[in-house]
Order: sequence, then structure tokens, then C-alpha cells
Amino acid sequence: MLKVGIIGATGYAGGELVRILTGHREAKIQWYGSRSYIDKKYADVYQNMFEIVEDVCRDDNLLELAKEVNVIFTATPQGFCASLMNEEILSHTKVIDLSADYRIKDVQVYEKWYGIEHKSPQFIEEAVYGLCEINREKIKNARLLANPGCYPTCSTLAVYPLAKEGLIDMSTLIIDAKSGTSGAGRGAKVDNLFCEVNENIKAYGVANHRHTPEIEEQLGYAAQKPVTLNFTPHLVPMNRGILVTAYAALNRETSYEEVKSIYDKYYAKERFVRVLNQGVCPQTKWVEGSNYVDVNFVIDERTGRVIMMGAMDNLVKGAAGQAVQNMNLMFGLPESMGLELVPMFP
Amino acid sequence: MLKVGIIGATGYAGGELVRILTGHREAKIQWYGSRSYIDKKYADVYQNMFEIVEDVCRDDNLLELAKEVNVIFTATPQGFCASLMNEEILSHTKVIDLSADYRIKDVQVYEKWYGIEHKSPQFIEEAVYGLCEINREKIKNARLLANPGCYPTCSTLAVYPLAKEGLIDMSTLIIDAKSGTSGAGRGAKVDNLFCEVNENIKAYGVANHRHTPEIEEQLGYAAQKPVTLNFTPHLVPMNRGILVTAYAALNRETSYEEVKSIYDKYYAKERFVRVLNQGVCPQTKWVEGSNYVDVNFVIDERTGRVIMMGAMDNLVKGAAGQAVQNMNLMFGLPESMGLELVPMFP
Amino acid sequence: MLKVGIIGATGYAGGELVRILTGHREAKIQWYGSRSYIDKKYADVYQNMFEIVEDVCRDDNLLELAKEVNVIFTATPQGFCASLMNEEILSHTKVIDLSADYRIKDVQVYEKWYGIEHKSPQFIEEAVYGLCEINREKIKNARLLANPGCYPTCSTLAVYPLAKEGLIDMSTLIIDAKSGTSGAGRGAKVDNLFCEVNENIKAYGVANHRHTPEIEEQLGYAAQKPVTLNFTPHLVPMNRGILVTAYAALNRETSYEEVKSIYDKYYAKERFVRVLNQGVCPQTKWVEGSNYVDVNFVIDERTGRVIMMGAMDNLVKGAAGQAVQNMNLMFGLPESMGLELVPMFP
Amino acid sequence: MLKVGIIGATGYAGGELVRILTGHREAKIQWYGSRSYIDKKYADVYQNMFEIVEDVCRDDNLLELAKEVNVIFTATPQGFCASLMNEEILSHTKVIDLSADYRIKDVQVYEKWYGIEHKSPQFIEEAVYGLCEINREKIKNARLLANPGCYPTCSTLAVYPLAKEGLIDMSTLIIDAKSGTSGAGRGAKVDNLFCEVNENIKAYGVANHRHTPEIEEQLGYAAQKPVTLNFTPHLVPMNRGILVTAYAALNRETSYEEVKSIYDKYYAKERFVRVLNQGVCPQTKWVEGSNYVDVNFVIDERTGRVIMMGAMDNLVKGAAGQAVQNMNLMFGLPESMGLELVPMFP
Repeated sequence: MLKVGIIGATGYAGGELVRILTGHREAKIQWYGSRSYIDKKYADVYQNMFEIVEDVCRDDNLLELAKEVNVIFTATPQGFCASLMNEEILSHTKVIDLSADYRIKDVQVYEKWYGIEHKSPQFIEEAVYGLCEINREKIKNARLLANPGCYPTCSTLAVYPLAKEGLIDMSTLIIDAKSGTSGAGRGAKVDNLFCEVNENIKAYGVANHRHTPEIEEQLGYAAQKPVTLNFTPHLVPMNRGILVTAYAALNRETSYEEVKSIYDKYYAKERFVRVLNQGVCPQTKWVEGSNYVDVNFVIDERTGRVIMMGAMDNLVKGAAGQAVQNMNLMFGLPESMGLELVPMFP
Repeated sequence: MLKVGIIGATGYAGGELVRILTGHREAKIQWYGSRSYIDKKYADVYQNMFEIVEDVCRDDNLLELAKEVNVIFTATPQGFCASLMNEEILSHTKVIDLSADYRIKDVQVYEKWYGIEHKSPQFIEEAVYGLCEINREKIKNARLLANPGCYPTCSTLAVYPLAKEGLIDMSTLIIDAKSGTSGAGRGAKVDNLFCEVNENIKAYGVANHRHTPEIEEQLGYAAQKPVTLNFTPHLVPMNRGILVTAYAALNRETSYEEVKSIYDKYYAKERFVRVLNQGVCPQTKWVEGSNYVDVNFVIDERTGRVIMMGAMDNLVKGAAGQAVQNMNLMFGLPESMGLELVPMFP
Repeated sequence: MLKVGIIGATGYAGGELVRILTGHREAKIQWYGSRSYIDKKYADVYQNMFEIVEDVCRDDNLLELAKEVNVIFTATPQGFCASLMNEEILSHTKVIDLSADYRIKDVQVYEKWYGIEHKSPQFIEEAVYGLCEINREKIKNARLLANPGCYPTCSTLAVYPLAKEGLIDMSTLIIDAKSGTSGAGRGAKVDNLFCEVNENIKAYGVANHRHTPEIEEQLGYAAQKPVTLNFTPHLVPMNRGILVTAYAALNRETSYEEVKSIYDKYYAKERFVRVLNQGVCPQTKWVEGSNYVDVNFVIDERTGRVIMMGAMDNLVKGAAGQAVQNMNLMFGLPESMGLELVPMFP
Repeated sequence: MLKVGIIGATGYAGGELVRILTGHREAKIQWYGSRSYIDKKYADVYQNMFEIVEDVCRDDNLLELAKEVNVIFTATPQGFCASLMNEEILSHTKVIDLSADYRIKDVQVYEKWYGIEHKSPQFIEEAVYGLCEINREKIKNARLLANPGCYPTCSTLAVYPLAKEGLIDMSTLIIDAKSGTSGAGRGAKVDNLFCEVNENIKAYGVANHRHTPEIEEQLGYAAQKPVTLNFTPHLVPMNRGILVTAYAALNRETSYEEVKSIYDKYYAKERFVRVLNQGVCPQTKWVEGSNYVDVNFVIDERTGRVIMMGAMDNLVKGAAGQAVQNMNLMFGLPESMGLELVPMFP
């Protein structure tokens, strides 16, 4: 039985970690870290956990925690994990960081897009980017795991096969993404009030969203050359779900069957990536609450482009679910343990 | 391993049965009955089940099905189950009927409120009303189980302890209920279109909703005398959830502690009924996707009334979850098997 | 042309005042008061007003403002208006207060339910309660107008005719109300975040909501005796709208026709109260954006009760629209001027 | 006073025509055509119109109607208007067709994308495409007006200035659009049920949506050469609103100021197109209920592309509002008469 600590357990991603780990046979949460709610019962913060979780919230002492548990999840603001990381912590425990601190290999890119100084760049090289379907083998041996961002997970998985096989012109790639509001976190901000989000849709972070360089880096590995792309996120009046619609010019004429076979080559054996049938567009509702990413594509012969689509639950595969998938890999457990969540519809 | 058949597998309650039973270790669905989608892949109707359910939908042959399976769930319109029921079917299999056909013991009451003739009244007496927390022992031996309605489940459980203990004047009982839209089913009706429901709330079935006599009958058993009450349902712009707010005059002065102890007397050991802490009002979101009913109460000394509240997921404890809970009881399985669903928030 | 000042112009009620007054032929807003956004362009706070309102927000100097305008609307927190009111202000201008400061005639009741000291009780007697359909004549001569609360407006109008005519037993009155989230204001609170409200419904303020004594007082005038009642508000995942479902025992047998004629007696000539046809339940969506209150009732012969229902837009008839209706009356303008707003559907 | 007839008055666009025309000083609806609700009171279909509209619905006799009114709005399915149009009708009245029948000049393109035969191609050349901001002069003299589609209105207006000025490479143009559900109409379809749309987002009509050739034709006129583009609509869980996010490569280096001046060149004097301030992204909620289109853009120097955005209410500027704007132009009335609708927020 793995002993688990969570830092940032009362944010939405932290809450989802608790939901998932509560149903995990080989893991037990020992530490519900939450600076805002120290000494308060966790179930008083998240009433859904009433009579399920009896623990109280505790402070964020990373080193003390490291000595108590086998793995720490940090679901904390950018910069937090990097500011505390050191060799001693990693000598005691494994760390799965849900923030962006160790996702980007070039520290200058990180500092430019996030606007903060990286406090422990010496661990960036060691950190493994935890997109399980792509980096599975590396993940198994990681001490420090950078859990991918929500948009990057969905975007990368939707585009990866065609980028990897060189079928698309990466310089033409445009990713238009739509997210539910839980992605904005549980902070009390006017912009995220019900009345501001409901009956509304908007783009935000146009041409400067922080997930852009993360997607570019990962798709650059696939394409084996630097990628510069447009990424535009939109806020949608729903709690959960990310939908990605990506556009790229095809490098040559191709057929539905050929492209389908490429997607199948990478995903047919993947438990959590479902390549939908021809003509079926991914919908976020079909994956809600689960660790699935649904992907599909349409070839537009008129324009010579392919439209690639992906849908997932931003809090599961886009955060806590993938983090648990990574934990399973890092500790030699079956990859899908605790993630046998059937999507909830409606 | 129980062999299970579902009639009406493509309605919302049927879909929820599939979701829950897919995660049940001791049950396997053998028959996905759906008159509307015969020969169509189930996962093409409910895309969330893609790569999870491979079966196709089949016709509704109840007798043939009875010979193949240990238990049949009928998630079908009123009158359907009653019109086909016979001794032969019940000699082969157990039946859990999610419609109202066998819920009401007085066939005249049924026929008056539902406006249809009951085709097999001879089975009404035998049928057991499957409100597990109240009828647990009878359920264990049932062949034919009447799964309670969604509103009656939440209403009855919120009021039951005080009715049973004689603390409230049953002639003053008023139940004001609010439901998500999945309770209206998956039929294509203008009234249930997104644009008609969204940004809207209304009462419906005022003073004549069919769940009224069912609630009256069950609370009458508790109070040991006939009960006539007001029940008013409302349609709320959300997918899932029922909230009940019930009002009754107290028969005598009492205290928070006394009333709390009465609720605890009936529910402290119940896995799926959670009596919340003082001052916490039930919210549907805190139970979404789970089999929990959250209840609580407030004493209003100014008016001498008690306000009783309950919240649950109408598709789980209000339909499919309770049906599986009944199945577990009927087959000697642990009552919560397959129902260890942690509520999903947000 | 009336010169108008608004204090609290950047709250939701303040914003609705701006929307309505912008379309009013005889009124011009001179002062957009907003402590939080001083010197910021109003249209930068409420982007819907871009190219419509060019003014900047100003501080809340009530006396200075009083000298500049004919009427001041105070859409401010409880206590604010009372703390600044004085004879000099009222000698220069009329004041329409959208807070609760002058609604309740018994200052002890106010102080008990609101938990604050009233700073200018000497003006309470003079202040006129601005429920136009009931206090029309008094309103015409008011200097200081107490604009009714949202719940009290809808609750009172739904129940008033039967209370006034003595047809219902006031000691049995229960009001179960449901409101959209704009009623909670634009403050940045976790409880009002999109993800906390969406797909959720809850009761709040059970047995202690501040609007209770206001409703009791108004219905007490109608019934000509003190009234004590239950009032329970619920938060509904929609922006706008209040629905009231009220229950009371009938004092004697009656008929649909008789009750209908009573409602018509009071409302047939009222522009903004619509008594719906038999069998039609009010829906908030049917009045959205307009100053209408839709009311109707159902007699339940089984229980001897009548169910009274009302629906309105909480920001219009429940706040800004009624305030403008009051302004029109106070200045001798046609009562519906600027309020010819057709409800928006869907 | 213009006499107006509406065919299809009980669809969502028809209902919006009624809402807007009810507030128009120089127009009076004489004929509420609705095949589905003949002889039923209009206000019984749209309860928001209770006590506002007293008329009953009538059949769809276009010729008879033509003799009674000055202008007919046809808010009807594709093919309906074309199947009935003839010279005699147009000799009696003007026709504003909200369907696609006369929008596309090349009848073969129409028949290919819509999959139906055009029954009156002889009127296509005469028909004027009613995008007021672009075709104002032609509209003034039109007998037969093709009211633009919702997506084409928003898409064209967002892109038009840069297409017209040759600043963007039209072969790279990608339009990713998001729409509220009222765009799908009031037909009773499972796909548009509340529970299917709520908490969900999906693309549809990928690479084959019927609005594609309409957008291509209009932007082709602007660019003075044929345009082929990608257009992908998405269904968003909200009632109203369309958001367009469009991407194109810039033909040369440019600056914010230059692009802004181009937008201003075309829209500064336009009442209903608002070019937002730098950095402000259009949101559908800021225009809800009004005839505004909000547009803005962001230059992405990294990719050499410009992201163009537009937001409007699909039922107003995208349908009924623009139709009334066209009517005003066709009859020499002030263009904004009846359209002084202030956006409703929240």
C-alpha cells in the first residue's frame, strides 16, 4: 500500500486526486495539505467527502511529508514546487508535480512565459514529462515527474500521430481549444463567478497563453524539429471538459484509411485513448469523470487540411487522473489501477 | 457471476444501470434491450461506452430473456412491465422494475393517478417496494421488486424518521421538490430542449404529480395512518440531482439534539444515507454520481415547524443505483458492491 | 429630463439600472457612483455598455450628488444608505434606496435580522415601501423610497390577493423560493463561482433569511394582523429569475373561478402583473429581462390548500425595474416609461 | 406604419422577430404564420408574449399574405421560400427571407451544399444579400432580400476589413466558430435536449457545414478573388450567442495601430459593429439581446498570423435583428429603429 501526500488538496485538481485515490486499492492518502484550511476537516471543505474522508487539512511541510510518504502530489501554483525542491526530499520520496515547474526543459522559456524565476533549475533535466502514452518507459524510473498541463495533454495527443509520421506541415498548425471552468481553479475571482461565465463564451490568453510553449516542445519532439504554432483557449460555461480542434495542412494527399491507420498505430493498444469511428466528433460529455481522451479527425479535401479533434476531462486525464496513471507507472502498478472510471452521461 | 438483462437500456436510467453494472464485480450484462435501437451497437447510442461495451441492442422479449439471465431490470414506461409479467417469467428470473407498476399496493390508486389499466394486479401484493433502508429484510427474498421513484426515494428518506417517531403532524406535511432534467427522460420533446430548460425554472404537475400517492403510501406506513400531503416538483436547469425541502408542524417542542438523535437512530449505520452536520444544507452537487442521500433539518422555533431536506442523484439512488443496491440484497451480495462511487465535484 | 445619480452602479442591480435608464426617454444618468472603480470608464467594467456609456465611475459623495440630480438610486450594501441619510440630502433630491435600510418599520426587527445598528431611524417612518401595485398613491409623494427586496416583491404579489381577501389561513403560509445567482451580487466569493453553482441546487438561510420579516410585514398589512411564516430561498444555476411557490390552507371551500376573480380584482388592470391562464405555471424564462411578475395558483382539493406561484426577473421587477417604476410614479411620469421591455425568450 | 407578416413565427428566429417588432414604432405585425400551431393563440406558444400579443397563429398562405402586408419575413426551413416565390408575390410586397434560399448566387453551389433543388432560381440574381454594413445601398432598393446566416454574419464582419484591404492571405483562413443552442432551432430532437447539450461541447458539420460557401462567397467579394476556407462550428451549452475565432497569415508585417485603423475605417461609423479596445476579447454575453457585433483582433508576431474575433447574438444580429435592420433600410426608416436594444448583462 502506497502512502500518499497531497499538497494543495483543496483546489479542484487536489479534490479530484482525493476522489480518484479514495477508490485506488493500493494507495492511501496520509496527508491532506492545504495552507488555506489548516486544521479544518477536509470533508468540511469538500462536503462530497463527508463520511468518506475523516482527516483534517495540514500545512505544506514538504520535507516532513517526504519522510512519511512514498509519493507526493503537488497541486500548487506555479513556482511553489520549484521553490522547495531539493535533493533530500527526492531521496525520501517521489514527487509528481501538477504545476508547470518542471514541464519545460529550457528554463529561459519557462521564465519568459511564466514571468517568474525558476528556483531549482538543476532538477529540470531529471524531471520526466508525464504524458504516459508517449513517455511510458521514462516515467517508470522517474523520481520527479512533471505532470502535463490540461491543454497540452489534449492538444498533444490529438496531433501527435500525424506530427510524428510527418503527415502534416507543422508550420501551419493552429490549435483552437475550449475548456470548462474548473480549469480556472477555485480562487474567488469576479471573472469566474457563475453570472460571468454562464450564457457566455470568450477567448482568453490569445497568442500568449502559457501552455503554448509546452505544446510546442512536445510536438517538436514528435516532429523532430522546432514547432511554432497558434494556441487559443476559450472559456466554456461548463464545469469539466476540454475540447481541442486543431488544423494543419497535409503534406501530401492521403486517405481516411491511411490517417486512421496512423492513429491506430499509436493508440489502438492504449487503454485511455479512444480513436472514434469515422464521422463521430468527440464530445466532452462522453468522457466526463473518466481518464479517457477521445480523438478523431476529418480530412478536408477542399482545403488540403486535416482537422484533428480531442476531448477529455480536464480534471482527470488533464490533471489528477493522469497523475495517478503516472504514479501507477512509477511504482510498477497496473497502469489503469484506480482509473477504471466509466464516463458519466448525462 | 450474475447474468443481467436490461429492458430499456437506452433511456437515461438504463444508461446509468449500464454505467454502474460495468463496474460491478459480480454482475455481467447479457442483454441490452432497446426497442428503438435494435441491432445498433450500444456504444453508438451512448458514445461514453465506446470500447467499454461491445454489445448490440436487442428486442424486448421478456420471457426469452428470463431464461437467459438471473435478473432483469425493466427501465421502461409505465404499464410496460405490468403488461408482460407472468408466473413463468418469475419462475425463471428475478425482476427489478424501475417503473411505477408495482409500487402502489392499491391498484385503484395506481389506475387513477396513472390513467392506465393495470394488466397484472395479481403480482402487486407479492412485489416488494425496494427502499432498501426501510424494507431491507423483505427485499432479500423478493422475486419481483418495485424500485422506488426518484422523488419518493428522496422525499421519504428525508421525512421518514420524524414520521416514524410521531414527531411531526403529518396533516401539515408539504414537500417542495426540485429535479434535474434527466428525470424527464430522453424522449424528444420541445419542453426538454436545452433552450427551454436553460436559464429557467418552473413548477409542474402541481397537485397532481404521479409520485404523490407513492410518497403518501410510504409515509403512511411510517406514521401508521393514512397521509395526505402536498407534493410539488420543479424542473431545474441541471442534468442530475433532486433536492427536497419538506415542511411540517412539530407535534411538540423539541431540540436540535433530540431531532438529530432521531435521524441518527435510523441512519447512523446506513452507508448511503448521510445525516449532515448542524447547519449544513444538502446540495445536489455533493452527491452527484453517487448512491448517497444527504439529509438534514432545521427547526424553526418561530413557526413551530421543522424543515427537512434531502439531496441525491436522481439517476443513482433515485433509479439505477438503488436498483443495483436491491439486486445486491436479493442475491446475498454485499449491499454496497458496485456502488462505491465517490461523488464527483465539481 | 430627470437628472439621475446611481450609487453602487457597478453591482448587478446598479448595472441593470444603467441598462434600463439608458432606454428611458425622460431620465439621464449624471453620476455613476462606484467606490471600487473610481475614475475607471464605466464601459470598461461592463463591456456591454461599450459605445453606449462614455462616463467614468465616481466616488460616493451623497450630499454633493444630491445637489446635482433630481433622484439618487442607492444600490448599496445594507447600512450604507442609512449611515449617510440626512435632512439636507432629502431637501435637495429624492432617494430610492434599493437596500433594506428603510423597508422595515420596526427598527428593532431590522436590527435583529440584519445584525447592524440603524444609523438614521428617524427617516424610517417617512420612507415609503415601494411595491407599486399596492402603495401606488403613497409612492407618488415620497421623498425617500424603500425599494422592496427581490424575494419580498415576488412573494408578496403572489400571495397578496388571497391574504387581503381573507381566503387563506395566514398561520399556515409557507413560501418556498428559488432564485438565480445574480441575486447574490457580484462579490468574489467561492460559493458563487461557476463550478460551485452550476449543476447544483441548495437551500440557504433556512429559517433565518433576512427577507422573512419584510414579507411578514407586508402580508401582515394585507391580512390586517401579524403574520409569521416560513420562507426558504434556494440557489438555482441560472443568472436571472425568481420563482416563488407558496402554500396555505384555504379558510373555506372555494372554486377556481372565485380565486381567479380575486386575483383579477387586484391585477387585471396592472400592467406588470400577469395572472396566467388556468393550468399554466409561471416560468422565470417567460419574464426574463422584463418588469413582469407572472402569477397563478392551483387549488388542491385533497389537502384543502392553495398553491400560489409567482415568477419574475430578480434584477428587473425585483430591483432596478421596480426602482424605475417607482421613479416614474414619484415624478409624475407614465408608470411604465422605460419599462416596455418585452421578455426575452429563449 | 408598416404592415408586417411573418411566416414561421413560432420558431426561435420567428419569436425573436416578434419580440423586436413589438417594440418597433413604425411596424405592426398583421400575420403570425405557423403551420404547426394554426388557430392557436400566439401567446400560448410563447408565454412571454402573454398580454402583449393577442393574435392567433395562421396558415402560411404567401400570396394572400402578400396582398395584406408591406413586408413578409420568412423564417422557414431551407427550400420553403424558394418553392413559393413568384412575381405576383413580389409585385405586392417585399420579402425578407431568413433562410438560405437566395443567399448564394451560384445555384449549383446552393444545390450541392443544401442537397435540394432550387425551385425559383430566376430570383437569385435579383435578391440582395442583406449584410447591412457591406451592402447598404443595394438593400435600400431590394424587393427580395436574402438575410444572411448567423455564422456568415459574424464570420464575415470579423474578417471583412482585412480581406478587403488585402492584409491577409485568404488561402490560410480558418474560422473556428462557437454557437449557442438556439441556432439549432426549436425542433424536438434528442441531440438538442437539455441533458445532451448541458455540460458538453462538440464540433459538428466539420468540413461540410452549409454556411461555408456563403462565407466564402462574401469574403470572396471582399478579396476580389475566390476564397476557400475551413469553417468549423461548435455547439456550446448556452441559449444565445456566436463567437468566431478566425486565423489567417498576414501578407506582410504590420502593427496593432495599422490593423486597428483598418477596422475603424470600415466600422467606426457603424452603429452595430463595435471594435473593442486593445486587449479586450469579445464575449457573447456582452452583446446578448442586442444587435451588436463586437470585433477585435490580436497579432501574433511569433507565427505571423492575426487572430480575428467576433461575438454577436445569433438570434438578433444573426437573424431577426439584422432582418429588421434590413427592413428599416428597405423602407427608408432610420436604420436602428426598433434595434436600440441595450445588451443584457448578466
